[in-house]
Order: sequence, then structure tokens, then C-alpha cells
Amino acid sequence: MAAIADCPPLTRESVQKAHEIVRKHVHLTPVVTNTTLNNIASTPQSADALEITEYKGRTPAKPKIRFFFKCENLQRIGAFKVRGAFHAISRLPEEVRRKGIVTHSSGNHAQATALAAKTFGIQAHVIMPKISTPSKVEATKALGANVHFSGSTAPEREAVTNKVLGTLEPGAVILPPYDHPDIILGQGTLALEFEQQVEDLGSKLDAVIGPCGGGGMLSGTATALHGTGIRVYGAEPMHEGANDAQRGLAQGSRITDVSTLTIADGLRTPLGEITWSVISDKEKVRGLFSVTEEQIKAAMKLLMERAKLFVEPSACVGLAVALFNEDFRSLVEKEAGEDGWNVGIILTGGNTTIDAIIKLFST
Amino acid sequence: MAAIADCPPLTRESVQKAHEIVRKHVHLTPVVTNTTLNNIASTPQSADALEITEYKGRTPAKPKIRFFFKCENLQRIGAFKVRGAFHAISRLPEEVRRKGIVTHSSGNHAQATALAAKTFGIQAHVIMPKISTPSKVEATKALGANVHFSGSTAPEREAVTNKVLGTLEPGAVILPPYDHPDIILGQGTLALEFEQQVEDLGSKLDAVIGPCGGGGMLSGTATALHGTGIRVYGAEPMHEGANDAQRGLAQGSRITDVSTLTIADGLRTPLGEITWSVISDKEKVRGLFSVTEEQIKAAMKLLMERAKLFVEPSACVGLAVALFNEDFRSLVEKEAGEDGWNVGIILTGGNTTIDAIIKLFST
Repeated sequence: MAAIADCPPLTRESVQKAHEIVRKHVHLTPVVTNTTLNNIASTPQSADALEITEYKGRTPAKPKIRFFFKCENLQRIGAFKVRGAFHAISRLPEEVRRKGIVTHSSGNHAQATALAAKTFGIQAHVIMPKISTPSKVEATKALGANVHFSGSTAPEREAVTNKVLGTLEPGAVILPPYDHPDIILGQGTLALEFEQQVEDLGSKLDAVIGPCGGGGMLSGTATALHGTGIRVYGAEPMHEGANDAQRGLAQGSRITDVSTLTIADGLRTPLGEITWSVISDKEKVRGLFSVTEEQIKAAMKLLMERAKLFVEPSACVGLAVALFNEDFRSLVEKEAGEDGWNVGIILTGGNTTIDAIIKLFST
Repeated sequence: MAAIADCPPLTRESVQKAHEIVRKHVHLTPVVTNTTLNNIASTPQSADALEITEYKGRTPAKPKIRFFFKCENLQRIGAFKVRGAFHAISRLPEEVRRKGIVTHSSGNHAQATALAAKTFGIQAHVIMPKISTPSKVEATKALGANVHFSGSTAPEREAVTNKVLGTLEPGAVILPPYDHPDIILGQGTLALEFEQQVEDLGSKLDAVIGPCGGGGMLSGTATALHGTGIRVYGAEPMHEGANDAQRGLAQGSRITDVSTLTIADGLRTPLGEITWSVISDKEKVRGLFSVTEEQIKAAMKLLMERAKLFVEPSACVGLAVALFNEDFRSLVEKEAGEDGWNVGIILTGGNTTIDAIIKLFST
């Protein structure tokens, strides 16, 4: 991994340069629209629906919303994570790269790193928690990575990471899953495409909502769109405090410990130092909004049944905010008025299974 | 409905003209590729997997296949059917059209007709079987159509159709779901896009596999691609004789009665007279292949979990043929040799629900 001091600055121009590097390795994923979801979003929620929420008694907002969905679920390995992995590994000098890459992830970053390493003909070592979904472990191995198991806590993970590093040539680098400029800039490339693809459809985005876990993708998106006039918002699950970015902003300092089992399993991680610095900058990210587990499930059902998009729970929080979060909906009503907004929703990934869907919706 | 004698001939040029009419009303649906599915298709099935099939004892074929998926599940109303409906209604003279349109369908054609009628500001009357899925009835009504219920047999349906026609001005027309040139030409427009989109990706289709129910879409595809060198094949479920096209070809005459409850519910219908004339023409459709219910489910699971595409069972028969039908796979091995083929798979629709998926995969 390039030392942070050697990385390009977090600017739109750096994202554009990252895009030149990344574009040949990733799919230009489609942007789709959906009239039914526009209609649902542009209809006030019923007072009854609000009755069981924190918005009880409020007059439901009447925003006008036209959606554009950026389908990173159709990306290679089924998630945007390949963008950051290809960018970061591309930028490593050949002599560093060939010592091997070490990373830790229970999910999409594991497969992304494995694919990028395989493409460059180098060895990836991925530390995964013992409790990882077997299908994700298998997929990572199938891409040629060396999988090492650890316990689920940070110290347990670091112990295994150090042990693995000890077996490699000195100078082998750790590829962090989100808190690194090269990763952030790589993930931000999806936002450049999104902006252009909506223009190609004859429209212009007014706002974009992206899910926020460790914050790499949201930081990259905010960096890519800074200065364009397109407003960037973050979406988080609120279950068991998973909305650490929102809570951190409220208290004025980063929250570093989160322990949540939200169904949006890609969003269980707290922000890192660098991603916090971007996301807590109001000029870059206008606000964070959070949603309940039931709202995530409802958004997932709508994305599948109405938009025919196969998405994982983490990918659904942005739509859930636009449909169900009255704070966000009032904001759109107020700021956009009669014209309404073209709202871009980043669908981050589709790595779920039919078995997981059965489990999720049978309970 | 234009009298059949007044319709354009079933030629590629007519499909091109239909595309000029239809393109402004429909989405240009994406074409996607998937390395994992290419690898699965290009790996011989295990001898064990063949053990429980009609291919028991055969040496598994070793075809090389690169897939391109035409995502009509992302089409308006979630299926290709809007193409035929918009084309047919567009070609009606204004004075005929405004008398209203009558059709019958339990599925995607119902919603397609409702949407096209709504767009032209005319009334659609849709005869649906009493046993139709409630969500499909609701969706059709939500698009402004007048839904009339009938029994499930053809005579019961015709009785209700005639009753409804009796309430309309003389000259109101019936829009058949597939067996009409205007419908066939409209559906064929997807194949023109498919051909061009694969060229835009720098490749060229060698073959296309399309599902075959009533045969409108398959006939339209064969018509659109006739003379291009792209081979067209049809895919059917074999459950309870649903493979009427294949069986009809074997016996040399059209099969008109089919009674099957295959999970591919869009493919339960037998061919019509016109679609039979196209599909039985070896110059247009090179062959028909059929698959089991388990193979359809396996293809559906792969499309969702690996390609992240939300598809209904009927959309999965083409992939099932390419992955599991040894007759087709041997043909590709023999005809394509070392080069392999670029095989286009038409994903016809995505109108299923999470409840239906739970029912399908929990048993």
C-alpha cells in the first residue's frame, strides 16, 4: 500500500485520474429508472405508517422524487469494492506488489482484493473471521486468495494479520478495506460514471444517497462530486447503534466502537479517521440519515419485486431513507419544492443468496 | 387490432420499422456479461450429474460458451411484453383504438396492454382467470385497466371476452397475446437491440436462446435476426408436456392442447398458428431444447446469486438449456469447436415475488 503521504489528494481530479486506471478493470454498471418507485416516493406516507415511528403525529412530507439507480450489484464480484482494490493495487510499485497483499474482510472487500491480486498475478492473503458466511469464504478462495481465519475482535484479527505478515518478505503491505486515500478515490469512480450516465439520459442529478459503513465509498462519492452542485447524503442502519456516523456528527467526534448485528452486514463497521474527516465536512456530505431493519427489508422487497434488482440488505439503506425517513423527505420537500429532485441511489452490492432471503423474510 | 392481411410481412425490415415505433415507449434494457457463468458453462457437467438424467452414460460435452444476457426483466412492467403491446396499439387507427382494447392474460401481457392503453389514453379490458396471482391483478388494475374475471378454460374465457365486447362500440378489437404479426414484430425489437449492444461491446453473437411459450417473442427474434448469421434456438420447460414446440416439430405438426403447471408459468401456452409457421421453419429457428423443473430452478438460483439478476422462472429456461441440456452443449462443442460461441440469453422478465421465491425454494 502506498504510504498515505504519497497518495494523491482527496479531490475530484484525483478521482478522475483513478477512473482512468480503474475503468479497464471494472464494468460500467448500468443506471436504471423506475416509475413505480418514483410514484411511491412521491406519495406521502400514511399517518398510520408514521404512528409506530419516531415521526408519530407529524404531518407526512410530500416530496417529489425521481430516482436513478446506479447498479453496482452488477459490478464484478457483485459489489463496488473492486474499484478501490484495483486502484490501490495498481498504484503499488511492482517490487512491493509482488511480495503479496494482506487484507482483512468478511465480505465483499475480500473477494475484491482476491480478484485484483489474481489479475496482477500476485498473492492475496485474506484474514476472515471464523464465523464468515461459507459461500463468501469459498468465493474468496475460488479467486485464488489464501484465506486465514481469525476471531471476530480487532485484537484477534491483528494477531493473525501480524502472523501472516511475518511469513512474507519484509515490505509486504496491508490493504485496508476503506480508510485509505487510494481506496476512497477508487470507490469514488462510481460517482463520476453515475453523474455522466444520468446526463446521457438527458437529466441531471440533484442529490445522491450512498450507504455508509466504514465510509470509503461515501467519502469517495463526496470527493468525486464536490463542487458539482450535486448534494451527497449518507444512509445508515440505526439498529444497535450502527448509525455511528450520524451519532458522531451529533456529538461532534468520531465514534470508534460499534457492535451491531444489523441485517445490513456491510455497514456494521464504524468510520475510519480519513473517512470521518471527509464525511464530517458539511461541504462534502450534507447529512446522514438512518433507517430501521424493517425499513431496510421493505426497501429490499421493493427493489427486487418492483425494480427487479437483486440486492443485498446493505445496498437498500439509501432507498429506505428516501422512502421512509421523514427528516430526509421533509428536506426534499422544502429544498426542491414543486420541481422535485432527481435523486441518485447507489446500490452498492448484490452478494446475498436465496437461502439468506428465505431466512430474512420468513421470520 | 389491424387485420392480419394489413400487417407488415414478417421480415427483419418490418422489425426495424417496429423498433422506430416502439423505442420511444420502452427502455433500452442493458446487456450484461458474467465470468462465473461463462466458467460454469464451459466446464463439462460431471458424469454423476448426468446419472439421473436422460443423458446417463454419455460423455459430458465440453463446449466453450461466453454469455451475453439481454435484461428484459429490467423492461417497463418487468417484461418484454410491452414491446408488442405498444407496437400493436400504435398501429391501430385512432378511431378504432378509442373504442377500447380487449385482451386476455394472467400475466405480463395483461400489464403490458394496460400500460400501452393508458399511454394512448384509451381503455383496456383485460380478461384474467379467477385464479390469477392477486399481485398481478392489482398491478393490472393499478395501470388503469378494467379487469374481468373468467374461468381458466378457453371456452370460459371466450364467453367473458364476447360479453365484454358486447358492451363496447362495434369494431373494438381484441389484442391477442402472441399470435399476431404486430405483436411478433414488436417483441422482435429486443433482438435488434441485443445484436447492436453486443457489437458495441466489441463482440458478435453466434447464437441466441429465447424462451418459447406462445412463441411471439421467439418468432420475433427469429424474424429480426434472419439473414444475420446469428443462430436462433428456443428453450422450453419439459414438465407435463410444456415442450409443445419441440414435440410438435418431432411429430411434424403443431400441438394445440397443453395442460401443464410448470413453474415457468409464462411458458404454459402452446404455439399459435403464426408462431408455429415461423418456429417450425428451420431457416429461422435452428432447434428447440427442453429442461426440467430442477434445472430451471438451478438456473434461476445462479442468475440471482451469481449474476445478481432478479428473474422469473420463465426467464431462466434459456440459461438452463445452455448449462444442462447435453444435446445443446454437444451441438456447441461440435459446431463452435475451440473458438466457442458468444451465446445471447434472453431474460424475458422478472415478475416474481419474494413470497413466490420462498415457496419455490423451500420445498
